[in-house]
Amino acid sequence: MAYINVEEGIPGIRSLVLFRPETGKPLYDLAQVLLRGSSPLSEAERELIAAYVSHRNDCMFCMSSHAAAARCLYGEEKNLVDEVLQDMQLSNISDKMKALLNIARKVQVLGKEVTPEDIVAAKIGGADDREIHDTVLIAASFSMFNRYVDGLASFTPTDPAVYEEMGKRMVKGYTLPQQTNTVS
Amino acid sequence: MAYINVEEGIPGIRSLVLFRPETGKPLYDLAQVLLRGSSPLSEAERELIAAYVSHRNDCMFCMSSHAAAARCLYGEEKNLVDEVLQDMQLSNISDKMKALLNIARKVQVLGKEVTPEDIVAAKIGGADDREIHDTVLIAASFSMFNRYVDGLASFTPTDPAVYEEMGKRMVKGYTLPQQTNTVS
Repeated sequence: MAYINVEEGIPGIRSLVLFRPETGKPLYDLAQVLLRGSSPLSEAERELIAAYVSHRNDCMFCMSSHAAAARCLYGEEKNLVDEVLQDMQLSNISDKMKALLNIARKVQVLGKEVTPEDIVAAKIGGADDREIHDTVLIAASFSMFNRYVDGLASFTPTDPAVYEEMGKRMVKGYTLPQQTNTVS
Repeated sequence: MAYINVEEGIPGIRSLVLFRPETGKPLYDLAQVLLRGSSPLSEAERELIAAYVSHRNDCMFCMSSHAAAARCLYGEEKNLVDEVLQDMQLSNISDKMKALLNIARKVQVLGKEVTPEDIVAAKIGGADDREIHDTVLIAASFSMFNRYVDGLASFTPTDPAVYEEMGKRMVKGYTLPQQTNTVS
């Protein structure tokens, strides 16, 4: 059970933003612009960074839901998602994405862990400033979302089928849920 | 120098949101509603939580600026800010705030560090669900802001007078900066 009196049966962040929609709105706006808005990184790549950081933060809800969204978006290449979550360096993801995921991994620990050498490696791999910016902000923002969801012990479903459905909905975008009894 | 091509001389997060205003807007909206919007926690208490988490994340820019804002808001009790940053448990802050700052300290490490006992202690201290929620979200969001600011190595002024002025402006609220050459 969650640490605060949220509606039962509503999983993860949705229960928290229904408890406090005033703060929920900028949180969903951020997810929408960062993961679905214009970016040189594909939506699949951005969801993969989100899932990877959530995995490293041991946040089951965010990892499972964003990995599901990434699998939908990668389509026939969906195995890449599980390869990265298992061992990023050994995965078949591009060298550019390996360099960006390495930056995300550093940000997940702490901002100051990112070194000039990490940035140079990403640029050699072909990443531009905007891609580096978006990678850092996605990694930073999931360092927030993960802590919000787990710090209040929000409901984390365990059935993979629930996340598969969630991932399909997330692909369509992030909009603040309305007060309802529907589990989603 | 920052890792990406932001305007020189603009400190911290301001340089980053000018680089990417689309993501800057929800970030500033979040800071405004969370730190200046309606809450059972005072603005001073909320800025103190932000400064405390930033201190523990070793983010000099966020710690210095939010500590300055907290000092302005605490007024004659401004010494509390420095006492908490030096040693929270030994400070003269209220028992309720000690219990909430303890939760913030756990969230700064990772969401799952928060235990049911931490929540009970806050409730015994007089905190309600909304105060616990806001504490967790402030701690989580500064785990993001700190990583964003330091992960891109944004400009961090070292002159305390700069932060004192910044704190006074922050007390008035958080609005997305407009493209300008003014250092602020």
